[in-house]
Amino acid sequence: MAPLQTEKAGEPLSTGSRWLRLSPHLKTRRPSPRVLMIAITNPPYNLLDGNVLSELKRVLLALRPTATGAVILTSDVPEIFLSHYSVQEILDFSSLVPFPVSAGVVRGLLAWESWSAYFGFRGLTRRTPLAPLAHLNLYHEVTHLLRSIPQITIASLNGRAFGGGCELALACDFRVMIGSLAEGEEDNIAAISRGIGQPEIALGLIPGGGGTQMLTRLLGPAKALDLCLSGRLISAKEALQLGLLNQVVKDQKELNEVTIEMAKSMARRNPTAIQCIKDSIHVGGSQSLADGMRREQGNFGEACLGPEAGYAMSTYLKNIDKFLGTGEDAKPEEYYSPLVNGTFIDMTPGGAARQNKRKKT
Amino acid sequence: MAPLQTEKAGEPLSTGSRWLRLSPHLKTRRPSPRVLMIAITNPPYNLLDGNVLSELKRVLLALRPTATGAVILTSDVPEIFLSHYSVQEILDFSSLVPFPVSAGVVRGLLAWESWSAYFGFRGLTRRTPLAPLAHLNLYHEVTHLLRSIPQITIASLNGRAFGGGCELALACDFRVMIGSLAEGEEDNIAAISRGIGQPEIALGLIPGGGGTQMLTRLLGPAKALDLCLSGRLISAKEALQLGLLNQVVKDQKELNEVTIEMAKSMARRNPTAIQCIKDSIHVGGSQSLADGMRREQGNFGEACLGPEAGYAMSTYLKNIDKFLGTGEDAKPEEYYSPLVNGTFIDMTPGGAARQNKRKKT
Amino acid sequence: MAPLQTEKAGEPLSTGSRWLRLSPHLKTRRPSPRVLMIAITNPPYNLLDGNVLSELKRVLLALRPTATGAVILTSDVPEIFLSHYSVQEILDFSSLVPFPVSAGVVRGLLAWESWSAYFGFRGLTRRTPLAPLAHLNLYHEVTHLLRSIPQITIASLNGRAFGGGCELALACDFRVMIGSLAEGEEDNIAAISRGIGQPEIALGLIPGGGGTQMLTRLLGPAKALDLCLSGRLISAKEALQLGLLNQVVKDQKELNEVTIEMAKSMARRNPTAIQCIKDSIHVGGSQSLADGMRREQGNFGEACLGPEAGYAMSTYLKNIDKFLGTGEDAKPEEYYSPLVNGTFIDMTPGGAARQNKRKKT
Repeated sequence: MAPLQTEKAGEPLSTGSRWLRLSPHLKTRRPSPRVLMIAITNPPYNLLDGNVLSELKRVLLALRPTATGAVILTSDVPEIFLSHYSVQEILDFSSLVPFPVSAGVVRGLLAWESWSAYFGFRGLTRRTPLAPLAHLNLYHEVTHLLRSIPQITIASLNGRAFGGGCELALACDFRVMIGSLAEGEEDNIAAISRGIGQPEIALGLIPGGGGTQMLTRLLGPAKALDLCLSGRLISAKEALQLGLLNQVVKDQKELNEVTIEMAKSMARRNPTAIQCIKDSIHVGGSQSLADGMRREQGNFGEACLGPEAGYAMSTYLKNIDKFLGTGEDAKPEEYYSPLVNGTFIDMTPGGAARQNKRKKT
Repeated sequence: MAPLQTEKAGEPLSTGSRWLRLSPHLKTRRPSPRVLMIAITNPPYNLLDGNVLSELKRVLLALRPTATGAVILTSDVPEIFLSHYSVQEILDFSSLVPFPVSAGVVRGLLAWESWSAYFGFRGLTRRTPLAPLAHLNLYHEVTHLLRSIPQITIASLNGRAFGGGCELALACDFRVMIGSLAEGEEDNIAAISRGIGQPEIALGLIPGGGGTQMLTRLLGPAKALDLCLSGRLISAKEALQLGLLNQVVKDQKELNEVTIEMAKSMARRNPTAIQCIKDSIHVGGSQSLADGMRREQGNFGEACLGPEAGYAMSTYLKNIDKFLGTGEDAKPEEYYSPLVNGTFIDMTPGGAARQNKRKKT
Repeated sequence: MAPLQTEKAGEPLSTGSRWLRLSPHLKTRRPSPRVLMIAITNPPYNLLDGNVLSELKRVLLALRPTATGAVILTSDVPEIFLSHYSVQEILDFSSLVPFPVSAGVVRGLLAWESWSAYFGFRGLTRRTPLAPLAHLNLYHEVTHLLRSIPQITIASLNGRAFGGGCELALACDFRVMIGSLAEGEEDNIAAISRGIGQPEIALGLIPGGGGTQMLTRLLGPAKALDLCLSGRLISAKEALQLGLLNQVVKDQKELNEVTIEMAKSMARRNPTAIQCIKDSIHVGGSQSLADGMRREQGNFGEACLGPEAGYAMSTYLKNIDKFLGTGEDAKPEEYYSPLVNGTFIDMTPGGAARQNKRKKT
């Protein structure tokens, strides 16, 4: 594949509102200037594999906050987000090594592959039978990017997200899924077959893209053990009740509306603040409390000393009585909405905030 | 301010049941001998700032378990617990440094300020433009104290607790808030304007007093990302459903009754056990599982070797059949209540338990 | 006690389906070939103590995945799972040391006892007044075994599980409890007296077998503080709503049916995958996110390179269209069930998967 240009303010990826095939398994479009939709297309079952991961990493690395404020990750195959990771690829790896290997040795090999990739040898590794090591590392790098880029990431789940698909969705900041909230939907096998879950154990495997980690941190160890040890698949309704999803919508049309609306409103946020919040929650929140607190405070300093916050704060202070007044004349409905839905102030690079700061300094 | 005396058994802070102005922004009263209420008063919007934090730290440091067993933190301004942290103070800091600074540099400066405060230079720092560094550290010290003192801490939320106010409430052991549980209350803008949330991102900022850390640990990363990235404010009802609040009450009168009753019942507990539980949960619970387990076991040893537990255990063993009997004559209602509501045995210093231990040894 | 033989494929512990007294406080039976039920019997109140823990450890160490795939932990005393840990034993320890001791010193003593046990001196220590140190370490070792053995562990809670009983249940992978889901059951004192909770603080103590750690990780710090600081006992219904239980059943008969059915279905799983999932969730999930991710990936490699996964994956690939088809002919009900309930493929040692692998290599 030809190298992908990184975005600049004037040249964002896929400038049109219609789908553009960016690479063999990815299409992109822009429903709104600062919102990039990425659709994975690997029919018939939309399996995740090393190639898809490699293309996804390329795109995520090319994004710049000057051009893109929110990313929507979806699929191009009806009723399927991602069926699961390619079992053939895992089987090839399993057949390669005829004897059991301990977890520590695998970790050592992964560390070695990370180093060799750093020196540019990943392309080579991927042509050898050791490719699955490169792909496991790629998986880790893609989910790490989703959790650390200064863009909001939204998983738009148009159908089944099992195994590796579930894990990719869990690495996004928000998850919206098509499903029904009707009575008895939890036991509806058709709903379950378009649902979510980590069925790896049915094949004697375990999640390998962060499923055990994200489920434990989202739901606690009891629910994580339940899902991973039983391997049971759950409907969108049950996933919403558990807290795996942010919202359930009824069909593809509503899914697009909801995710694009969410992305548009979030894409106006301060990219530094988005990145700092994601880092504080994912990295800081997984450390000891004292370390996490310090991490948050450092991030707070970074966000508050950036150019965007200064302008927003001074604008807010001029209107503080409107926002905080509690007397009879208080009309919170007029003031809360812009504050919270992001229309209060444009904090995108090149927007009012940054220009004002430039003037000031 | 004149230095505050530390409490002794005979001279607790604010001995009366009526409000006493302890310092420029704090009032205190004792609704019950071992319960101290602290009200923050900084009208009109009850903003949190460096001065309030400094006064809060003084009071928390002065508390002694011999005099105080539970602390209720509330506000003196109707319908407002704390609107948020003073934006003016953050803006002054932001204006001071005209170029972006990385999170690591801020963490380094905070560590330097902590050291200089240790050698007594905080008063000096607070008179320079670097005061916000001192205040960030002060914030961390106050929430750390709330999480580690041997007193039960209860946030009595008489109204809006946004941003810094939400973070201060989250550092307490229990949170009770005025609100309505009526249908549709989640979308009622008036309820939301008296609710709770972390709207920092609306001003291009992020929570800086532990919001991302406490939300992640309380609710998991998905809900924490939702609240911090959207900045949406939520009603007391939604906060209760999420698990941010322990109880919602209908008005100020009920708020006082509930929090004081809760505080009175908890104030009879063994202070060492309270401190050990808080440490095990906050510190141990944020470490790796093996480290956390060892931390709990060490704390268990400390609590069980203290003077209070010995007397309580021997009293319990004399009556064990009453508590554990399961036959037809069993009357659990008679025995469970005193065990659980704290009236079973007085474990306050100077109470029966400690006197008995003194006799024994 | 005579040393217990470790299990081999042909000689599992307690081969019969009727109860066998294995040691003074334990009975075992096999309701199904790969399912071992262990009942604790220490009437009248089924208190946990050093002897019970020592016997439990012996049995858990003797298990081999070739013979046992799932363990059900229950009690032999009607309406009582485990009342709590023996208060007499803690009191003896407390009386031994007439002065307060800091948590750090206790941790040091526990580390010393661990070392001396490693060199075979635990039997000696348990005959001295320092026995409680050995028992605290034993407690830690038993709960660690429950969280790390390659067998599924199910707590079959036939009644009250307070204090140490609650902690032992929380160390299992699944918890099923007898109780009622009727209206108002949360406040029913009879239901509460057969419920669950950590009432240690009522005696001036704190949980010592991992209660603060497991509750914090399962429910977050707010709920953990609520339960441990108030010491309140809760009914099975409330415990289910909180997420402490996986299921509530109405009586002993249903309890046996449900737990045995659950165990039978899980006992066919790949033991390596079970162990890897438990390790990823408990150990990995308590580390920082980056460390946890690496731990999971290492475990994934170990599971996928074992003999069971290879055969399962190749069988699955032959039928992938049946499982993943979404057209009008798709009949997910026929294919999802065997995949998820464990009948899809027998991955027990000696089963089809392993024999096939032996042939191949």
